[in-house]
Amino acid sequence: MTITITAFERSPDGGKGLARDTRVRWALEEVGQPYEVRLVSFRAMKEPAHLALHPFGQIPTYEEGDLALFETGAIVFHIAQHHAGLLPAHSDGDANARARAITWMFAALNTVEPPILELVTARIFEGDKPWAKERVPLVEARVRTRLEQLSARLGDADWLDGAFSAGDLMMASVLLRVRSSGLLDDYPNLAAYLARGEARPAYARAFAAQLAINTARQ
Amino acid sequence: MTITITAFERSPDGGKGLARDTRVRWALEEVGQPYEVRLVSFRAMKEPAHLALHPFGQIPTYEEGDLALFETGAIVFHIAQHHAGLLPAHSDGDANARARAITWMFAALNTVEPPILELVTARIFEGDKPWAKERVPLVEARVRTRLEQLSARLGDADWLDGAFSAGDLMMASVLLRVRSSGLLDDYPNLAAYLARGEARPAYARAFAAQLAINTARQ
Repeated sequence: MTITITAFERSPDGGKGLARDTRVRWALEEVGQPYEVRLVSFRAMKEPAHLALHPFGQIPTYEEGDLALFETGAIVFHIAQHHAGLLPAHSDGDANARARAITWMFAALNTVEPPILELVTARIFEGDKPWAKERVPLVEARVRTRLEQLSARLGDADWLDGAFSAGDLMMASVLLRVRSSGLLDDYPNLAAYLARGEARPAYARAFAAQLAINTARQ
Repeated sequence: MTITITAFERSPDGGKGLARDTRVRWALEEVGQPYEVRLVSFRAMKEPAHLALHPFGQIPTYEEGDLALFETGAIVFHIAQHHAGLLPAHSDGDANARARAITWMFAALNTVEPPILELVTARIFEGDKPWAKERVPLVEARVRTRLEQLSARLGDADWLDGAFSAGDLMMASVLLRVRSSGLLDDYPNLAAYLARGEARPAYARAFAAQLAINTARQ
């Protein structure tokens, strides 16, 4: 069955790979599944047809036969569950390793990403507010707390828990969103971890695919 | 094997059920699994022994034999995968329903909860800042956007997708955190949805268990 995902007709980042369809593309590339993309305009995202697919009016969505999913984490998890390559296999006899890899997916999305998104909000959407200058450092401090803890846990390892997993895919994708702030520079092992993620051929293909759409339309 | 979770020795909310161990207790009660609780002080949470279990120095954690997990979403998902009662069974022949229930877990944690936590930050941790009065309404507007969309999707249904699932457990737990703001009052179907969650006997047992700890120590 054909897999179809949705992506921004024109991504707000102009193709830097920060839009969440990149995470889904990366997962599909890691497991070697072809997919089609349906582009959605900002206006169409808020219209009934898209809201039926994604109640929060966002991208990406995932359709395969009669299955329709939204929410990047859920989509990447679904791909990881149904294809080899993103989670330790049950047959490895280490069900615990699989549970721990899933833990890192949730940690990326619910513990590390929220303060990073707050920083994006503080710097960009509220960047012209009178409180921005005083408030941005407060939010940066919250991001630093998480980066510090993540850096301590990663240590000298290549990936968060053994082999590369969907947990690393998600964590690297989250770290991508904070790189432009410069905060990652203080955590060389995290910067190297992110670089290892970007160096994966599957990531390179995913990045190129979203860039092609965004540059073709500019 | 004994299941042991961690919880605050003294919860910042004084036992209102907002600490994340309540979510794990609720899940364990739904599936009928007994569990033990190890209480952790704020100081101990940042010490090496706890950080080895939870790299971000938080509660809850989950230990069962040689499995150690952190991150509420991952713990609830693990419980839901290993015991009947929180996810549509594979044997129901509707693997899609299971994938959709998991989607709502991620949506609760990564789409609905982040603006709600931003509002908690804006009102409480930054409540004394000079920008609080002007900024809180901005953050409230972001929360309203999500509540509006969630309300539209829920409609007249009892639960988000068929029978009660781990997705509802997580979404109701997230909505609990916004109730004190009064914003839920504008979405009667969401308030009723939350009340249905709280009315579940498993929730009542989970709530009572965390309250007993917090009132015993005050």
